[in-house]
Amino acid sequence: MYLKNCWYVACTPDEFAEKPLGRKICGENIVFYRGKGGEVAAVEDYCPHRGAPFSLGYIEDGLLVCGYHGLKMDSDGKPAAMPGQRTDRFPCIRSYPVVERYGFVWVWTGKADQADASSIPVLKWADSPDWGYGGGLYHIQCDYRLMIDNLMDLTHETYVHSTSIGQKEIDEAPVSTVVDGETVITSRHMDNVTAPPFWQMALRANDLADDVAVDRWQICRFTPPSHVLIEVGVAHAGRGGMNAAPQYRANSIVVDFITPETETSMWYFWGMARQFKPADVELTDSIREGQGRIFAEDLDMLECQQRNLLQYPERRLMKLNIDAGGVQSRRILDRLIKAENTIT
Amino acid sequence: MYLKNCWYVACTPDEFAEKPLGRKICGENIVFYRGKGGEVAAVEDYCPHRGAPFSLGYIEDGLLVCGYHGLKMDSDGKPAAMPGQRTDRFPCIRSYPVVERYGFVWVWTGKADQADASSIPVLKWADSPDWGYGGGLYHIQCDYRLMIDNLMDLTHETYVHSTSIGQKEIDEAPVSTVVDGETVITSRHMDNVTAPPFWQMALRANDLADDVAVDRWQICRFTPPSHVLIEVGVAHAGRGGMNAAPQYRANSIVVDFITPETETSMWYFWGMARQFKPADVELTDSIREGQGRIFAEDLDMLECQQRNLLQYPERRLMKLNIDAGGVQSRRILDRLIKAENTIT
Amino acid sequence: MYLKNCWYVACTPDEFAEKPLGRKICGENIVFYRGKGGEVAAVEDYCPHRGAPFSLGYIEDGLLVCGYHGLKMDSDGKPAAMPGQRTDRFPCIRSYPVVERYGFVWVWTGKADQADASSIPVLKWADSPDWGYGGGLYHIQCDYRLMIDNLMDLTHETYVHSTSIGQKEIDEAPVSTVVDGETVITSRHMDNVTAPPFWQMALRANDLADDVAVDRWQICRFTPPSHVLIEVGVAHAGRGGMNAAPQYRANSIVVDFITPETETSMWYFWGMARQFKPADVELTDSIREGQGRIFAEDLDMLECQQRNLLQYPERRLMKLNIDAGGVQSRRILDRLIKAENTIT
Repeated sequence: MYLKNCWYVACTPDEFAEKPLGRKICGENIVFYRGKGGEVAAVEDYCPHRGAPFSLGYIEDGLLVCGYHGLKMDSDGKPAAMPGQRTDRFPCIRSYPVVERYGFVWVWTGKADQADASSIPVLKWADSPDWGYGGGLYHIQCDYRLMIDNLMDLTHETYVHSTSIGQKEIDEAPVSTVVDGETVITSRHMDNVTAPPFWQMALRANDLADDVAVDRWQICRFTPPSHVLIEVGVAHAGRGGMNAAPQYRANSIVVDFITPETETSMWYFWGMARQFKPADVELTDSIREGQGRIFAEDLDMLECQQRNLLQYPERRLMKLNIDAGGVQSRRILDRLIKAENTIT
Repeated sequence: MYLKNCWYVACTPDEFAEKPLGRKICGENIVFYRGKGGEVAAVEDYCPHRGAPFSLGYIEDGLLVCGYHGLKMDSDGKPAAMPGQRTDRFPCIRSYPVVERYGFVWVWTGKADQADASSIPVLKWADSPDWGYGGGLYHIQCDYRLMIDNLMDLTHETYVHSTSIGQKEIDEAPVSTVVDGETVITSRHMDNVTAPPFWQMALRANDLADDVAVDRWQICRFTPPSHVLIEVGVAHAGRGGMNAAPQYRANSIVVDFITPETETSMWYFWGMARQFKPADVELTDSIREGQGRIFAEDLDMLECQQRNLLQYPERRLMKLNIDAGGVQSRRILDRLIKAENTIT
Repeated sequence: MYLKNCWYVACTPDEFAEKPLGRKICGENIVFYRGKGGEVAAVEDYCPHRGAPFSLGYIEDGLLVCGYHGLKMDSDGKPAAMPGQRTDRFPCIRSYPVVERYGFVWVWTGKADQADASSIPVLKWADSPDWGYGGGLYHIQCDYRLMIDNLMDLTHETYVHSTSIGQKEIDEAPVSTVVDGETVITSRHMDNVTAPPFWQMALRANDLADDVAVDRWQICRFTPPSHVLIEVGVAHAGRGGMNAAPQYRANSIVVDFITPETETSMWYFWGMARQFKPADVELTDSIREGQGRIFAEDLDMLECQQRNLLQYPERRLMKLNIDAGGVQSRRILDRLIKAENTIT
């Protein structure tokens, strides 16, 4: 149950800097590497000779070389050479449209001729000197949609992340969910509250007082297939909230690229883009470390939830107002998946 | 293949002293905790909101709080509260009759309206100042009935526990098996034998000579669903065996509560109740440690036996005279399970 | 998909020197031990009493004793004794023809009455003072036929073993594959090449110059069910290659006994028999250590290949000239397996 004709974040370039990277995405075994001229390439992780995975091989002159018997594969999935063999009638393997952008590798898992790089979401914060970014990757044993639900309902922060970003007011503040085409936006504003520990840290990092009341906001944006970008921040209370002048504000974008591996497992690319002290590498590391610790708190919950759902497949999940973000996101996904399957 | 309308030992109170305890029993995911007023409660380990396990949550004012989004559950399985929500029309979950008695938590896995605390077995040794008790818990990957077989045929001690409680005479002494209603009693008396190491220790702990001939006995009692209590002991030879005066005797009750987890796994609550030096905590610890080591010797055997049986499902087990205890116990179980399924 | 009416290498005698050895071979649980008079015996690893594995038991007077309740099993699969029981009408278990020869235990997994020890392959190098032998055992999660393919196409050495025995010329030299009855022979001769590191070591061990050009050869011989013996060596160039006088030559036989465990796992008995310095124990150890390290390089490749093949079961493997050895070997196997199944 995932969309195939779309771009997923597959990996980051550092993951295949040394050797080809094998990764299963949407049920497909794919190998990522840097081909001729240095561009990123992705083909099936399956040598047509004997089925060995290319990810155990290496790169030579931009060609992927099978580490078993030396077949050389071109990035279009056509065998290019093999010692002592003529490869022109060798069977081809599938190659995947792939784009390196914003520090990520984006892969198109559906029909190659429909791949259009312009449909990769525009990330204003990436490649901009005004923003700093740090992030990581978690491999989680759950349906990727459980993570969408998780991120589109931040009331869980009060419970799962009670010592860092959670606070009672998240539960209490009214939440609004709006569907705009294929985008779902869930917003929450908490005025005149105490900043929780993470945001006190961010205030200090912005050279702002951390012991005064703040206005806090969370604007979650889902876009298909499974991206959730969350504008979050605090401003000294009464200064205009999200629209406060920079000297009263600490804000950032929580970045969540959620890539299905199988029906019940996923790759979770998380990170934070911040609009303050963008070049401060130490701060980037410190935030990454903190966010990594916080986001790891979700793992056990999600994996246990998945096991529970598998044990009781006939039970329906509830759809409360706080769940509207996830419910609407799934509704869009269902519609797009259905369309994809009927057109095909 | 387990009885549901009955009491099983589920856990000991120390297991949920800090936080709720999730445990699968007879295929059901159950969470145990201390509710309002301190009484033990048990409900499905499944939050009706999004399927998260309550065992990852916490207790607040005697209510079980889901650690994902804060739904509060009452011990009767009715949602009690949730931030920003009216919960009166929320779906309920199953709650389980549960009784704290004799230092154990007993759970009724069948129809709640048939639960009758008076059918919990009477343990004369528990809560009595004349008896000392120590025990532990093992999680074993085998059908719980293989453990019943194990305990109702103690000839295995000669082989599995040859260095502690086993001795040749167990094999040689005649065994008698009697069925009394739903109870199966297998008895063995060995007169004028050498005490094996464990019993020499027990004699010494009773301030008795350990280097003289003894009369030894083993009276195994099975009662449904899966409890096996074994009266064991030695007395200086010729002093009346089981009926010898206390100054010639060291005796105890081996306690075995066997709780199915799934068809091929179980929770094994083992322990020893002794009628001597009941308040000697060091002795309790030493016996627990020794018994734990001895009973661990069965684990590998039972799990390997289970794997063998799964590989050859068509093969029948033999039913020798020594197996009569297990055979009769299974016969009672089969009859009760069949009755339970037809009446229902 | 394995032949049953044949001899497989099951284990080496040291593996059951201390206690019975349980090992699954061709899907059958078998226990190996030394019976009466010291001869090797093999029966099902399944006590007919309660299904416990005999491999958790022990040997007494040449009888296999079940470690659960003491049933004593004879090597013909007939229960011999049990404390307090008459065993003459106990069910029997299967016993397996077994032969100890050449330092290995050979087991016949098919119909016992067809077992003929004379069909065990003759190993001229075993039990001979002119040859030294060292080897080991790997447990690999792949179809045993993937290992046959591996060994009948040594071009993989160039890639998998590039730092030890691989060299470019293996890929470049013409290969010849000949089928002779049920034997497949794949030969490759590389003349006037540089010796790779392993063979430089072997030359030095033969007191030969290691920095001169050599002629190198590899003669792989497959015989059913799954033995691959490979004559390998180097000689100083122009001295006659394989037929060079001993003072110009370093040669050995790579020994590969491949025993299926299940459809997707196998026991790999590897070793090297050398015709030089046969009594040099240190050299034996050093070669074993080196070969073990080299052959371990295949494990990951084979297990990943197996997973890929399981994921894409409909895909056909290619059959190039370099694959002819494996292809012909599988063809013989297919024919023999088909014959075995139709006759039966």
